[in-house]
Amino acid sequence: MRVIFNEELKAVADDLDHMAQAVRKAINASGEALVNADLEAAQSVIDGDIEIDALESSIIDQCVRLLAKQSPVATDLRVVVSSMRLASTFERMGDLARHIAEAARRTYPLSPVPPEAQDLFSQMRDFLDMTADRTVNMLADRDADIAERIILDDDTLDNLHHQTFSMVLDDSWTGTKQQLIDVVLIGRFMERLGDHAVSAARRVTYIVSGFDPSKEPQRDEGTDIS
Amino acid sequence: MRVIFNEELKAVADDLDHMAQAVRKAINASGEALVNADLEAAQSVIDGDIEIDALESSIIDQCVRLLAKQSPVATDLRVVVSSMRLASTFERMGDLARHIAEAARRTYPLSPVPPEAQDLFSQMRDFLDMTADRTVNMLADRDADIAERIILDDDTLDNLHHQTFSMVLDDSWTGTKQQLIDVVLIGRFMERLGDHAVSAARRVTYIVSGFDPSKEPQRDEGTDIS
Repeated sequence: MRVIFNEELKAVADDLDHMAQAVRKAINASGEALVNADLEAAQSVIDGDIEIDALESSIIDQCVRLLAKQSPVATDLRVVVSSMRLASTFERMGDLARHIAEAARRTYPLSPVPPEAQDLFSQMRDFLDMTADRTVNMLADRDADIAERIILDDDTLDNLHHQTFSMVLDDSWTGTKQQLIDVVLIGRFMERLGDHAVSAARRVTYIVSGFDPSKEPQRDEGTDIS
Repeated sequence: MRVIFNEELKAVADDLDHMAQAVRKAINASGEALVNADLEAAQSVIDGDIEIDALESSIIDQCVRLLAKQSPVATDLRVVVSSMRLASTFERMGDLARHIAEAARRTYPLSPVPPEAQDLFSQMRDFLDMTADRTVNMLADRDADIAERIILDDDTLDNLHHQTFSMVLDDSWTGTKQQLIDVVLIGRFMERLGDHAVSAARRVTYIVSGFDPSKEPQRDEGTDIS
């Protein structure tokens, strides 16, 4: 029984790794679509979201089956429960990357954000690419140190996100209303991607240490609508 | 053992009911804060979010304990797994209501949305109040019919949300940039509240019928950034 359980748990872990990799691909390509008006990249994110959704569905099915047949306890139970929650977090990250890609597709061959916003969004993109790499590595190695770095560094993204508001509110802003909407919403999507990475990091911390991440302060502290 | 299990499952169900009621209160009060610039209502949502977060944490703890000690199968397992996911959905709804309340508090004694947007936001508010009532009743009675209505009617909210964009993009729009930002983000928060209610409805459908809601089409189909 134990052997079967370990094999099944391994299959879930493999699928989660694939999911994290698929989300990284989506984040990378949505950033490319946004900053370099790359239509092919945008389309790949939109098309690829189905795979991410299917992985979530499959992981949750596998976890429910595992719970029903194997009745795991202690660490194994923590892993199964956290895997379900991680799958939902990654699914949501896929959605957010898709939203960014859809905006880029809509405004192609232009970028949805005007030239004056490109530098700021490039910085947010670079941050998210780094976070996506960290997320994949954290998960593959169950690495609580990487998890901690993801959690601590999220302030950087929040700061960049805050700057999107100062930028559009400044008198020097020359973009259209549609561009203002896109800056605000895409900024929000990117900030939420960071929040979800933090949430994933907390779940990995829980797997590794048994410390319950739901006891942590709120994920989505500030609205930053100003 | 069965008696204890049923008692513990009942405790989870009661906490979920409380959570749905707390979320309804948050939705009602955030709507009041938004439309009638009610500072007290806004503050009550912001303060009350801690209780919602604590309920999520408690429900997930209880479910993990139930899984560890009782090894539920079949319907009971579905209920436990769905309860954890419902708790996370409600927690997120509490956050979204809090974001709306925070915006209302920031612009008090004015509303964050200008007079020309009041009618549209009143309609969205009324829709969400109805949805919050339905969510509480659906959950209390495990009512799949109400769940279906929540799912089917979400298009109405999406339509209203879409109108927020047409409104600010129209030449007749006279609001400030800050008001434009608030309309766009608060509109998004309200649309997401509806999406999460749909997600809760799918989980209740799963509990009642065993039909897996994760096989359903995507919750967050459109970005509607235009």
